[in-house]
Amino acid sequence: MTKHAKPDHPVLDVLTKRWSPYVYSDRAVSEDDLRSLFEAVRWAASSYNEQPWRYVVATQADPAAFERLLSCLNEPNQAWARRASVLALGIVSTRFARNGKPNPAAVHDLGLGAGNLLAEATARGIDVHQMIGIFPDRARELYALPEDSEAVTALAIGYAGEPDSADSGHGDRDRAPRTRKPLAEFVFGEAFGAPAGWL
Amino acid sequence: MTKHAKPDHPVLDVLTKRWSPYVYSDRAVSEDDLRSLFEAVRWAASSYNEQPWRYVVATQADPAAFERLLSCLNEPNQAWARRASVLALGIVSTRFARNGKPNPAAVHDLGLGAGNLLAEATARGIDVHQMIGIFPDRARELYALPEDSEAVTALAIGYAGEPDSADSGHGDRDRAPRTRKPLAEFVFGEAFGAPAGWL
Repeated sequence: MTKHAKPDHPVLDVLTKRWSPYVYSDRAVSEDDLRSLFEAVRWAASSYNEQPWRYVVATQADPAAFERLLSCLNEPNQAWARRASVLALGIVSTRFARNGKPNPAAVHDLGLGAGNLLAEATARGIDVHQMIGIFPDRARELYALPEDSEAVTALAIGYAGEPDSADSGHGDRDRAPRTRKPLAEFVFGEAFGAPAGWL
Repeated sequence: MTKHAKPDHPVLDVLTKRWSPYVYSDRAVSEDDLRSLFEAVRWAASSYNEQPWRYVVATQADPAAFERLLSCLNEPNQAWARRASVLALGIVSTRFARNGKPNPAAVHDLGLGAGNLLAEATARGIDVHQMIGIFPDRARELYALPEDSEAVTALAIGYAGEPDSADSGHGDRDRAPRTRKPLAEFVFGEAFGAPAGWL
């Protein structure tokens, strides 16, 4: 299944084709593709080039490792994410390596890294659905996260499946149309809430 | 000037060509391009499709508005960012619109939106340099940000200039090679710090 955005202004195909499915097929993501997905993260921008992103990754090829990572997701997310080919935890290093001070951009920059991963995945026909609903403490315990690191997101990585192949709740979510606010609701000029004049 | 990454594994051109310059030329970014940059943000993923990103944008075409936005950047950032064609503040809505509860993904998702903007900009030959060094309280006051919104980043948007056209400090930064950690330092398998087996 594919589900393309219909933008009001022209944007790249890798942005309109990106979509977060709930239903995954059983097709495996190759190791070549995985390497390129994380290489894409590697070249993201970050504050002071700190590169605060860290990932723990598990694939269906190692069922025990996959189940372990799955257990860090909350139950509603476990229900659909267990069908994805690959799971990853998105972790941030919360302090600057060079001076130990808190990095106020760490979580934002994890998002920048993920943006790169999503673009690379979309270009390869791979779908990614991110989650904030995880158990960070469980992740800390299972993977021995150091004190200055924190699990923030999880990523389900794979190929979207047919909505009919899943229970109706997840299938219906995948069939629902894509919706977004118009630009005038979030791009402002003179003051917050006042749309920019050039919109 | 351009400054391409040399990736270890193949990734999209819009990711290798992305780069955050300090030196900008005086070429203006068109309104068509600006609309597409924020349209790119619009289609980013966000937790519960909350779309927590908000932007205040000012261009050199309106010098008073530009100076006002520039004053929200810290002094070291003002020194180089004043040459960019466009400045924007990246703001998050910190609570879910539908229930008023805190959105733990808001700052992460601002990063996802920025990732889209950067990809679209790069495809158009436009350069963006983001900053975390801003005065959020000044932004709140100048633009009447509501209590549940917070300025997190600033973005300088324009066309990279020649390093020689700037003072040596900023020119030298633009001439420095691009460096990144190897994948094995941030993509793990069995435990934090243990490189994934497929790397």
